[in-house]
Amino acid sequence: MTKATRPTLLLDIDKCKANIQRMAHKAARANVIFRPHFKTHQSRTIGNWYKEFGVDRITCSSLDMASYFSSEWDDILVAIPVNINAIDQINELASRIKLHLLVESIETVQFLADNLQNPVGIYIEVDTGYGRTGIPSPYVEYIADIAAFISQSGKMSNSGLLDHGGHLYSARGVVEIRQMAIQAQQKFNKLAERILPHYPEMNVSTGDTPSCSVMNTFGSATEIRPGNSCFYDLTQNQIGSCDLFDIAVCMACPIIATYPDRGEVIIHGGGVHFSKDTLTHEEYRIIYGLVVDPEDWSQTLAGCYVSKLSQEHGTVKVNLPLSYKLKVGDTLYILPVHSCLTSDAMPCYWTTTGEKIEKWNGEI
Amino acid sequence: MTKATRPTLLLDIDKCKANIQRMAHKAARANVIFRPHFKTHQSRTIGNWYKEFGVDRITCSSLDMASYFSSEWDDILVAIPVNINAIDQINELASRIKLHLLVESIETVQFLADNLQNPVGIYIEVDTGYGRTGIPSPYVEYIADIAAFISQSGKMSNSGLLDHGGHLYSARGVVEIRQMAIQAQQKFNKLAERILPHYPEMNVSTGDTPSCSVMNTFGSATEIRPGNSCFYDLTQNQIGSCDLFDIAVCMACPIIATYPDRGEVIIHGGGVHFSKDTLTHEEYRIIYGLVVDPEDWSQTLAGCYVSKLSQEHGTVKVNLPLSYKLKVGDTLYILPVHSCLTSDAMPCYWTTTGEKIEKWNGEI
Repeated sequence: MTKATRPTLLLDIDKCKANIQRMAHKAARANVIFRPHFKTHQSRTIGNWYKEFGVDRITCSSLDMASYFSSEWDDILVAIPVNINAIDQINELASRIKLHLLVESIETVQFLADNLQNPVGIYIEVDTGYGRTGIPSPYVEYIADIAAFISQSGKMSNSGLLDHGGHLYSARGVVEIRQMAIQAQQKFNKLAERILPHYPEMNVSTGDTPSCSVMNTFGSATEIRPGNSCFYDLTQNQIGSCDLFDIAVCMACPIIATYPDRGEVIIHGGGVHFSKDTLTHEEYRIIYGLVVDPEDWSQTLAGCYVSKLSQEHGTVKVNLPLSYKLKVGDTLYILPVHSCLTSDAMPCYWTTTGEKIEKWNGEI
Repeated sequence: MTKATRPTLLLDIDKCKANIQRMAHKAARANVIFRPHFKTHQSRTIGNWYKEFGVDRITCSSLDMASYFSSEWDDILVAIPVNINAIDQINELASRIKLHLLVESIETVQFLADNLQNPVGIYIEVDTGYGRTGIPSPYVEYIADIAAFISQSGKMSNSGLLDHGGHLYSARGVVEIRQMAIQAQQKFNKLAERILPHYPEMNVSTGDTPSCSVMNTFGSATEIRPGNSCFYDLTQNQIGSCDLFDIAVCMACPIIATYPDRGEVIIHGGGVHFSKDTLTHEEYRIIYGLVVDPEDWSQTLAGCYVSKLSQEHGTVKVNLPLSYKLKVGDTLYILPVHSCLTSDAMPCYWTTTGEKIEKWNGEI
């Protein structure tokens, strides 16, 4: 345990690689392609670890992120409904790599048919329950029309049907995850039965870390795209996707003020480091992180949690004995609520053995 | 109005410079030093605009940020309780610029006395009501002891007493801001009466955008440090610090999916762009931004607001006529809830005339 000179995002490489390996093995056993989502770590170095486990294609959440990873990967799905205003960037990327785009309307595929300069794979987004994006799964004829249009167009090909079970984030516990995952699978199965016979080249791609973590079979799916599962976090732990022990990232923040009479310490570490994402903890209510043992991140310290964040300050509630023991200059180790957003906010990772790991800084 | 090719943070230079000028003039009229906080814009280019209005000293929220600005400014206050683990960085910075640090305990000034290699100015943080950091203002003797210790040490000098009225963010309307600001001033006045006669070189430094925006006199304060007031945002508008017209930054986000039957469109623009900070709107409840007229950002569109954010997707509620009119590829203009965190999340600014303005990307 070293003293943090600034808010620092620590990465346990062993846990991270074990998480990657577990998911890669599960995909192999279930005979599905593992196309991991890289929006969580956003690092070429960490990305390359997946290659050790046979991964040869990835998912990104923006064209800019795909550009960053395109120096290392030549098969990338951008899993957000395509932004037609970025057609120049799409054409440039598709000239270099096998690019897959996500669509959910006939207008968008018509635009692409008219404007693509290079071959692009198309996934059709299906809503199997989340209610954010995608064509509702009962709209079979509309989905079939889009697939037919794609297959007849010059530059596009049908890469697959895709859903993202974002609604599984409301699950609590493995049983609920399973129930919700199976419901989504049933919707997807019905659709696949109707569409796939005409397009045997199509994948059926499913995402979300909870179902990928808990399920061992994936219905009609031929591809899984979990992202958060390389790091996990308190939210996934609360949902039931992981053990606290599996969480591979931890913030180390210096204490800059102590208030024993308030049962609080103030850390350097705020919204620009953790993000402002929250978790409703059953005991502590709204929290931004849990304090853990520096030597064992799976051991939370009773009564110790981040209760408030301003831009650079974090307010940490601590238990009575600790509140009189902790001193300015001590370092608190804090599991993040949402590792995707914490990683995005931080400029780099530091391994537990003191090596810096670079990541994308969002620059374009 | 151009089509956004990605989530883009637009800056209206005229509004921004008018906001800076207004505050600089107010400080001059009130005969107080204007030491603006640069954590909001985090840009050397924007920072240099303050020089046109006579500003020669600034405030930052971290040593790393101070390092970034130290190429342009030679008098910088780091307004967060000093992180003693960063003593090497402090010594390096203090060898190049006039550095001011913030303390709120005798232990910290003792540490600094033993470890500083170069002269450093010290502000003592006083809590006049916020309850986050600082020594409670009634602890006059403790504050006097710290000031005495500083004045007798070799490398430190007394730069001032400092408060930050973060509790004013709970004010609603100008009258409440005034009441709360005056209460804080009264506490500060009492303290200043006791401490300042012994240390005439001390400033009395007060922050927070609401009071700096609304008040014209600042009690015993000799220095003000507003930050957000260069941009403002929906939160400051709700508090009563600014007009919607004064808000100088606006997100431009492409529509990537439309759901007229749900009264929603989905934009590319999520938590990694806006931040996850929220505002409780009296009509729309929890929001992440308000949609405005592209040609006049002070004109909000009725019933149009950002209701949800995931990592890269934003869900925007739109009114019925608009929900059938908006198309994929259209651009929505959205005022942010908290411009400090949105600016921090975004890699750069684009002026309304199409020029890119660089900012610090958090790299160290």
